[in-house]
Amino acid sequence: MSTPVTGHTSILPLLAYPASHIRTPSFMNPALAARGIDALVVPWQVAPPALGEVVQAMRRSESVAGLIATVPHKTALPALCDTLTTDAEALGAVNVVRRGADGALHGGTLDGEGFVSGLVQEGHALDGRSVLLLGAGGAGAAIALALCRHPIKRLIIANRSIEKAQDLARLVTGLTGTPAEAGPADPAAADVVVNATVLGMRPDDPLPVTTTSFRPGQLVAEAVMQPAHTRLLETAQAQGAATHAGEHMIRAQIDRLIDFLFEAS
Amino acid sequence: MSTPVTGHTSILPLLAYPASHIRTPSFMNPALAARGIDALVVPWQVAPPALGEVVQAMRRSESVAGLIATVPHKTALPALCDTLTTDAEALGAVNVVRRGADGALHGGTLDGEGFVSGLVQEGHALDGRSVLLLGAGGAGAAIALALCRHPIKRLIIANRSIEKAQDLARLVTGLTGTPAEAGPADPAAADVVVNATVLGMRPDDPLPVTTTSFRPGQLVAEAVMQPAHTRLLETAQAQGAATHAGEHMIRAQIDRLIDFLFEAS
Repeated sequence: MSTPVTGHTSILPLLAYPASHIRTPSFMNPALAARGIDALVVPWQVAPPALGEVVQAMRRSESVAGLIATVPHKTALPALCDTLTTDAEALGAVNVVRRGADGALHGGTLDGEGFVSGLVQEGHALDGRSVLLLGAGGAGAAIALALCRHPIKRLIIANRSIEKAQDLARLVTGLTGTPAEAGPADPAAADVVVNATVLGMRPDDPLPVTTTSFRPGQLVAEAVMQPAHTRLLETAQAQGAATHAGEHMIRAQIDRLIDFLFEAS
Repeated sequence: MSTPVTGHTSILPLLAYPASHIRTPSFMNPALAARGIDALVVPWQVAPPALGEVVQAMRRSESVAGLIATVPHKTALPALCDTLTTDAEALGAVNVVRRGADGALHGGTLDGEGFVSGLVQEGHALDGRSVLLLGAGGAGAAIALALCRHPIKRLIIANRSIEKAQDLARLVTGLTGTPAEAGPADPAAADVVVNATVLGMRPDDPLPVTTTSFRPGQLVAEAVMQPAHTRLLETAQAQGAATHAGEHMIRAQIDRLIDFLFEAS
């Protein structure tokens, strides 16, 4: 699965809270080994109030080549980095951090590209389609920008805080020219529905939509990776819609993560 | 070699500076897997001035089950722990730290027991013999105490700072009753010579002894693990002395380290 750990192995802590559900190590460690890179992704559960202290200590931890981040840390990380990619700065979200030899931290966000690549690799069409995005947090913002760089018809963003959805819609339209607006979490008006909220991770979570009228021809896609088949996907599938599991988002961005961490450009 | 990393895997950072020479992961990770413990030792290179900050952050890193420490961090760690074993407190040295679920740190030192067990397991006799110990640092102190708990004839401790050697000699005699004294780094007077300095890790290091007159019947043992055969061992072997490599100290304490970290008693 991965190369044996030695004193030369670089460590890539995956910041998460909780960490029990993460699946990135099982995808990324074999990919690192296959590329001949002596590095290992390890879980790093840290509660939000401790994130700043832990990330500061990572600067001084010389075996650490970089960090990967998932829920709920993506939006807190930009302020803890020294430099950001253009996308990470625009979105206020970071899911990967490269650590320089001097401890400097450079943050990027690859979730959006990973998500859209995953859809395309699985043969799902996006061109000219209306997309409903559920959630405007770190993953939602990254996915919104990547979707709007694609020739979709329009993007509707549903979020508990409507203001946050409106802000994100303005941002991505400004950056890409694609029409985007805030709207209700109602799948009826969309060809493609994307869940970028955390709802679905726990068995008793409510569905992230207000109605459950899915239909054949519609595509329902997840950013939630664990469980592999959320109740949202099961509901959509039962009604004849096509579904797309969350793990594709990570699978499709593994090579990009490795490039970002080890092919400094 | 080791179990694949998942979100449930516990992480055991091995604090070292430098870390490139460490061999504990290659011994301990297979032993953890063999005992069905989902945990992984990973190198954690940290410079001495950053140790306090990094250890503090480990308290808040919930995936961390504990820490292992080697040169040069063993003597700085007691002050960073909340509680210590009796030996760690007496010796002022820690090479293993258990992290409680609340982040509390409990430090212990197993180098001494590991070293003496390694000698015994390899069939080397200590009873009634005079032992010259080179070095009175963290590893030296632990080895001195473990040797003096054995029925050796007497212990001579040679150290750059004679005062430190005298202090250690008084300490271990007080704790065990075995005669111990400070003395020169001259192998002539001893049946067993133990190197617990770091000299031998780098190819251009001087030998840790003042003369190189070894003889058959004498045993020369290393705490340095990398290189496996130091120049001291080569010199002793060429003159007919028996030799004992540093890796036995770690090999013999792997099970004790795992007990300390995972079988809280």
